[in-house]
Amino acid sequence: MSRKRRFTSRHGRVHSRPGESPGTLRIDPEAIPPQVRLIGFGPDAFVDRPITRPADIRSLKGKWPVTWIIVQGLGDVQVLTEIGKAFDLHGLALEDAVSQGQRPKAEPYEDHIFIVARTPSADNHAASDQVSFFLGSNYVISFQDRPGTLFDPVLSRLQSATGRLRKSGADYLLYSLLDALIDGYFPILDQIGEEMESIESEIISDPGEVSVRRLQAAKAKLREMRRIVRPLRDLLNELYRAESDFVREDTKVYLRDALDHAVQAIDFVDSLREMSTDLMSVYLTSTSNRMNEVMKALTLVTSIFIPLSFIASIYGMNFNPNTSALNMPELNWVYGYPFALVLMAVTAVALLFYFRRKRWLG
Amino acid sequence: MSRKRRFTSRHGRVHSRPGESPGTLRIDPEAIPPQVRLIGFGPDAFVDRPITRPADIRSLKGKWPVTWIIVQGLGDVQVLTEIGKAFDLHGLALEDAVSQGQRPKAEPYEDHIFIVARTPSADNHAASDQVSFFLGSNYVISFQDRPGTLFDPVLSRLQSATGRLRKSGADYLLYSLLDALIDGYFPILDQIGEEMESIESEIISDPGEVSVRRLQAAKAKLREMRRIVRPLRDLLNELYRAESDFVREDTKVYLRDALDHAVQAIDFVDSLREMSTDLMSVYLTSTSNRMNEVMKALTLVTSIFIPLSFIASIYGMNFNPNTSALNMPELNWVYGYPFALVLMAVTAVALLFYFRRKRWLG
Amino acid sequence: MSRKRRFTSRHGRVHSRPGESPGTLRIDPEAIPPQVRLIGFGPDAFVDRPITRPADIRSLKGKWPVTWIIVQGLGDVQVLTEIGKAFDLHGLALEDAVSQGQRPKAEPYEDHIFIVARTPSADNHAASDQVSFFLGSNYVISFQDRPGTLFDPVLSRLQSATGRLRKSGADYLLYSLLDALIDGYFPILDQIGEEMESIESEIISDPGEVSVRRLQAAKAKLREMRRIVRPLRDLLNELYRAESDFVREDTKVYLRDALDHAVQAIDFVDSLREMSTDLMSVYLTSTSNRMNEVMKALTLVTSIFIPLSFIASIYGMNFNPNTSALNMPELNWVYGYPFALVLMAVTAVALLFYFRRKRWLG
Amino acid sequence: MSRKRRFTSRHGRVHSRPGESPGTLRIDPEAIPPQVRLIGFGPDAFVDRPITRPADIRSLKGKWPVTWIIVQGLGDVQVLTEIGKAFDLHGLALEDAVSQGQRPKAEPYEDHIFIVARTPSADNHAASDQVSFFLGSNYVISFQDRPGTLFDPVLSRLQSATGRLRKSGADYLLYSLLDALIDGYFPILDQIGEEMESIESEIISDPGEVSVRRLQAAKAKLREMRRIVRPLRDLLNELYRAESDFVREDTKVYLRDALDHAVQAIDFVDSLREMSTDLMSVYLTSTSNRMNEVMKALTLVTSIFIPLSFIASIYGMNFNPNTSALNMPELNWVYGYPFALVLMAVTAVALLFYFRRKRWLG
Amino acid sequence: MSRKRRFTSRHGRVHSRPGESPGTLRIDPEAIPPQVRLIGFGPDAFVDRPITRPADIRSLKGKWPVTWIIVQGLGDVQVLTEIGKAFDLHGLALEDAVSQGQRPKAEPYEDHIFIVARTPSADNHAASDQVSFFLGSNYVISFQDRPGTLFDPVLSRLQSATGRLRKSGADYLLYSLLDALIDGYFPILDQIGEEMESIESEIISDPGEVSVRRLQAAKAKLREMRRIVRPLRDLLNELYRAESDFVREDTKVYLRDALDHAVQAIDFVDSLREMSTDLMSVYLTSTSNRMNEVMKALTLVTSIFIPLSFIASIYGMNFNPNTSALNMPELNWVYGYPFALVLMAVTAVALLFYFRRKRWLG
Repeated sequence: MSRKRRFTSRHGRVHSRPGESPGTLRIDPEAIPPQVRLIGFGPDAFVDRPITRPADIRSLKGKWPVTWIIVQGLGDVQVLTEIGKAFDLHGLALEDAVSQGQRPKAEPYEDHIFIVARTPSADNHAASDQVSFFLGSNYVISFQDRPGTLFDPVLSRLQSATGRLRKSGADYLLYSLLDALIDGYFPILDQIGEEMESIESEIISDPGEVSVRRLQAAKAKLREMRRIVRPLRDLLNELYRAESDFVREDTKVYLRDALDHAVQAIDFVDSLREMSTDLMSVYLTSTSNRMNEVMKALTLVTSIFIPLSFIASIYGMNFNPNTSALNMPELNWVYGYPFALVLMAVTAVALLFYFRRKRWLG
Repeated sequence: MSRKRRFTSRHGRVHSRPGESPGTLRIDPEAIPPQVRLIGFGPDAFVDRPITRPADIRSLKGKWPVTWIIVQGLGDVQVLTEIGKAFDLHGLALEDAVSQGQRPKAEPYEDHIFIVARTPSADNHAASDQVSFFLGSNYVISFQDRPGTLFDPVLSRLQSATGRLRKSGADYLLYSLLDALIDGYFPILDQIGEEMESIESEIISDPGEVSVRRLQAAKAKLREMRRIVRPLRDLLNELYRAESDFVREDTKVYLRDALDHAVQAIDFVDSLREMSTDLMSVYLTSTSNRMNEVMKALTLVTSIFIPLSFIASIYGMNFNPNTSALNMPELNWVYGYPFALVLMAVTAVALLFYFRRKRWLG
Repeated sequence: MSRKRRFTSRHGRVHSRPGESPGTLRIDPEAIPPQVRLIGFGPDAFVDRPITRPADIRSLKGKWPVTWIIVQGLGDVQVLTEIGKAFDLHGLALEDAVSQGQRPKAEPYEDHIFIVARTPSADNHAASDQVSFFLGSNYVISFQDRPGTLFDPVLSRLQSATGRLRKSGADYLLYSLLDALIDGYFPILDQIGEEMESIESEIISDPGEVSVRRLQAAKAKLREMRRIVRPLRDLLNELYRAESDFVREDTKVYLRDALDHAVQAIDFVDSLREMSTDLMSVYLTSTSNRMNEVMKALTLVTSIFIPLSFIASIYGMNFNPNTSALNMPELNWVYGYPFALVLMAVTAVALLFYFRRKRWLG
Repeated sequence: MSRKRRFTSRHGRVHSRPGESPGTLRIDPEAIPPQVRLIGFGPDAFVDRPITRPADIRSLKGKWPVTWIIVQGLGDVQVLTEIGKAFDLHGLALEDAVSQGQRPKAEPYEDHIFIVARTPSADNHAASDQVSFFLGSNYVISFQDRPGTLFDPVLSRLQSATGRLRKSGADYLLYSLLDALIDGYFPILDQIGEEMESIESEIISDPGEVSVRRLQAAKAKLREMRRIVRPLRDLLNELYRAESDFVREDTKVYLRDALDHAVQAIDFVDSLREMSTDLMSVYLTSTSNRMNEVMKALTLVTSIFIPLSFIASIYGMNFNPNTSALNMPELNWVYGYPFALVLMAVTAVALLFYFRRKRWLG
Repeated sequence: MSRKRRFTSRHGRVHSRPGESPGTLRIDPEAIPPQVRLIGFGPDAFVDRPITRPADIRSLKGKWPVTWIIVQGLGDVQVLTEIGKAFDLHGLALEDAVSQGQRPKAEPYEDHIFIVARTPSADNHAASDQVSFFLGSNYVISFQDRPGTLFDPVLSRLQSATGRLRKSGADYLLYSLLDALIDGYFPILDQIGEEMESIESEIISDPGEVSVRRLQAAKAKLREMRRIVRPLRDLLNELYRAESDFVREDTKVYLRDALDHAVQAIDFVDSLREMSTDLMSVYLTSTSNRMNEVMKALTLVTSIFIPLSFIASIYGMNFNPNTSALNMPELNWVYGYPFALVLMAVTAVALLFYFRRKRWLG
């Protein structure tokens, strides 16, 4: 995958060309062909069938209290257009559902609400995957750009006749899907948290540039998570507060719960971010302390040996003791050499003592 | 306690599994079995009895003007479910009351208000304990995950027939409990404040990495406190401003007082945080000053001895004074050696004088 | 005064015990016994009498258009309770008036407005004193924890029959007291400003750790001032905007003026804070510059003498010039020694020239 | 181009002289003479003609459902005044359209809405070009200070009879122009993003001052982009929320889409800004690490050789071994020299070993 | 001028004494005696006459559609009081007009609006001058503390009978004055911008403490500008949005334009502030880079010569080559000295090569 592509896929959308007509579906040439699946259910019914001819959808929608169309893969304009027509989806919304890199948002249209959310990608290199939903009075359509197991638990709950899900409307289904998506954030945050604790212990025991890189990577992931979760909170808040025909009053208490989960995720992200800032400052303090200690120790060594060398070099001068009794008589003393050695030892000890008193040793 | 567990218990909730049905009670396998206690009271009555069979609650709950159910320990689904049914508690709220790690919040439901608050843990390693309340028209239910003495003073006040508490409703009881909880924050903040002053004097007298670690720990505690108190203030504000059937007008003046206490706690936390920032900067300035002084002093030593050694090494050169009168005649001078020593002394004094004039000494 | 006490008195309140009944008056055991004084006035009347038996207040309070009760000292529960009863003061408000360490606030009650303000303490060690007021329809009660001259100018204005004050109501009296209090902030801010300019000149002429400590102290004072003035601005804003029976419309224009003064004080504080940040950065830049210069200069000295010493040590080698004509023939040259000295001089000059060209000399 | 001019053209407007009458058209003497072009269209009509005599506009303007006047170049007062009169444009608005350096804004007037937007300049040195629009009930007038191809794609779409554009009103045309303008931001942001990744790899492989300058330049561009996009978002938000006769309800859903694109551009800018902050901190950490390593290594070298030199200088002392058996008997030992060399080697190894154990080698 | 005075004049007001009666006019003893001038105008009239006896104003004030009183100099209580009485100006407002150091604000009173604005002082040492206005139904009064030419262009426009100004009311006159004042900000901002670019080039070519001081000075000026312009924007916004009898609807579009200019000035200030932050960081990076390079280079010199000196000092040892064939036989070798020199040269080259390979050279 080229550098260019990675960047584009990280930050955003396949940009529509400037001046292009709005609502034009632009298919990423590398996109996977869509697999469409229809789930129809009600208190007493449950149907799960793959859709091979999109035109079939028109005749099927409405047959059950709630219809859920699952689209995985966005690589075929015709299929997507067909679905759009079947449910009268607004062109702008459909364009956004197809083009990856949208930020989470909720946009009310006349016949439906269009919702974009994002989920951290399983693939470690890509940053996050887009999931979009259309919520109508009796249907939900979900778009993902590739097959995934994100919503499997909701499907299982639908299959069993017990539980609230089968008895409730499309809005409750949408809530369940969003809630499943948010709950999927926590394991990833836990993982980042563990990575952080591992970095912490590394920084304490052996700080190095590797730790800084790991920390930067963790921070980047946290930034990505925040970019995913914050607008999601806002959109949940909008859905919760909105007066809309598509969201019933008794579903709102559940939306509030999802909103609370999103806020909790943001809290988690924020506390991890604060932790990362602290770790960085611990790293910097500890590196600079280590460095300082090394420099201090080495400079001490130098500071002790230089005066000693000075003494030695004095007695290395070539003044002629024979010319005058004043010229380095020590050289001819019986105890001259021991005297010099003792002088050096005393100097060294005195310096060490002085340095210790000044608290320069350690 | 494993690393993993500590982390989870610090940051949050036993996560519900993605896609799981909302309102499912998930019991932490290590949770303590619940002890349930019923307090019934009114101006002329006071009953305090342990509940061993939760089913009894249904028959007892309306018998006194106010009923207070105290649940300590969250380790038994059946007991909790039974209480939930007795008071028609909403499933989502009960789920949150049981799962630790919620952030403080107030959620109005049709039949009751659900409130989560947190209190700093007595246990130094865990960060904070969750306390949750249900406020109905004539009852309060409090949930804690283990037995504690937090509410004992309120109980004592209830036992004595005098005082406002016995004559007031469930909302005033809730206020009393929240107020007791907030008042419990101040001793802990005082403690952090004292720790901070101790760190301050340590940093001034003997700054070291230990002080930084203590400071980081204090900052972490302050962060935790802020995470506890800020949403608590918001929830008190909500309760104070809300138009609710469960909170009477004449209780609101007391809620405002509790709100004021919470704001005071936040002020306290914020001023301690500012103090910690200042301490860090004092630490950094003082460490770097010390380091600089050491380096300067040692470099000075070197700078003085190196020229002296240079002089000595000049007279250590082996030019032959016999070859020429120009070749180090000093070596044969009568006062050659004293001359060299004086030359060194003069150089040293001159250098010291120069350094002092340049203000490099100190 | 113990460390503990100082801290408590700085940061706050004598904490009520957790769970204690609200409205309980807790007297600081070191508090001064109260001196109570009654000022009664109207356009044509002015009475100033000390109150020794608080019970007298009840009979006196409606006798003049405006009654002002001055309470200085908070050391006697009975006296305070008596005053509270005489004016029907709410228990929570009275509790706050008595317990020091409240933050500035305005709380409307049914029969009166309760206001807390703070004034920087004359005593340099304590941070700020609390002054609280009750404003009723025809009375003002002021509480201070010790005698002081803060309101003497207002008293003098009351004594003279001319001027607006005697003709206006209790709300205008309250405004006059608050305005006197705010005007008292400016001399203190001027003082901090002068201290700051003195620090500035010290930092420019002789930066040292002393300057940093003085700066930190000034910053702490500014923080304290901000903690005093900001909530005061908010409470004045509330009083100004509030629709209250106790504040007449034509007094509001004066409250707006007081509000403007408070905003000016905040502006002043903020500009001093910015100045302190700048001073810190000037200090850091200048210290590091000085340090760098010293290190550079000393390293230069070393860098020049080490090559010189190297040359000297070459000619200190003991190769035997007699063995071979190649072995240090310089030693026997006629101009050997001068040659060596000149070599050193040339080296030194060359190095200096090189360093200067590289702009390493200063 | 002089320094002065560059600055003025970067930051702003050709300032009107203080006190000058508002609405005076001030022509930049270097401005290009205007080329005026009229586009008239409706579902069944499309006319594109250059206007050489501005007076003609009056007779032409109502002839098609929508008229679009394109003005490129702002160098002729008379032409601009004529256009202003033809459409009753407000003097203040026209003044702003003519004077470059306005910030993006939407100003409703009685007869039209005036909109200023900016587009990053193709010319690398100038910062951004101003584009302004007047939206009336059935016309759009666009002003640019020089010919450009920004709106060519919209023109092409107009030429083809299919598509929404021909069938819609002036407001939809305005939306199309703004959308084309916003879509033009993304290629530039992509470019900055690529520059940033190139800087990143440079910083990792070979950090230097060049990287810092490139980073500063990228940051400056991002700041410029933010200064362009943020007010644009605000103006789109205003247009979207405003109740105006000039913006129909069914155009608003398109404006919301444009708003969403603007928000996406801001997100993009913000994430690039965070990236730049991170890069700077990576640069600083890595530079200081490199520096530290060099200093450490060099100091190590010194610390090992100085003790060795000391040993050598001891045996360079001139004590007379003949005077006394104590005076440097080593000098006459058979293995004296090897002994000294071995002593040095042992010292060196011991020091290396000690440094390694202390982790100073590293 | 004493230090004290400078400070007071920079930061603020001649403080009223605490407790003083509000509305007391306090004249700065150094203030200039006022020159009063009356401008009366209407579509067909224009009168400009100096007022020597303030009492005359009463009889003159209603004689023209709009009256503009210009007061320059604030040194005479009686004159000011007389003007205040003639127009029924509120005492608090007049006090503020007279006392310098007010922050920009708009205060509606019953009979007039009182407006304070500030303009950067021509005098480089004083920070900014205060200009205040009273806007009544048919008059404007402007107060300045000394004569100045700020409003001369407006006067010239008034003199000519053409133009909107003569035909409009007092509110349009006020707008014209405020607009002239704001337009006066831009030349000063341009000047700061040029100073900044000069600092920038200095920092790049030769960074030093001088640049830092210039930068700090520029930052201080920008702070002052912000303190002047931000509240001015707020007051214009208030005037624009306010429903007031004194501001007509058709003047508001002009106020919006002035507001837009103020916002542009703030934008300009903010972008210069960001530039100053960047310059500081460029300075720090570049200083530390230079320092690092010097230290590195010098340490390299040392690191190369110390091993060389070590070799020299080995051959300076006095081992007796006659005692043993092992004792420094090199000393008697024919090529002993050349060998030593070559050894040194090889060592030096090897070290240089090693350092270059490690990229420590530059």
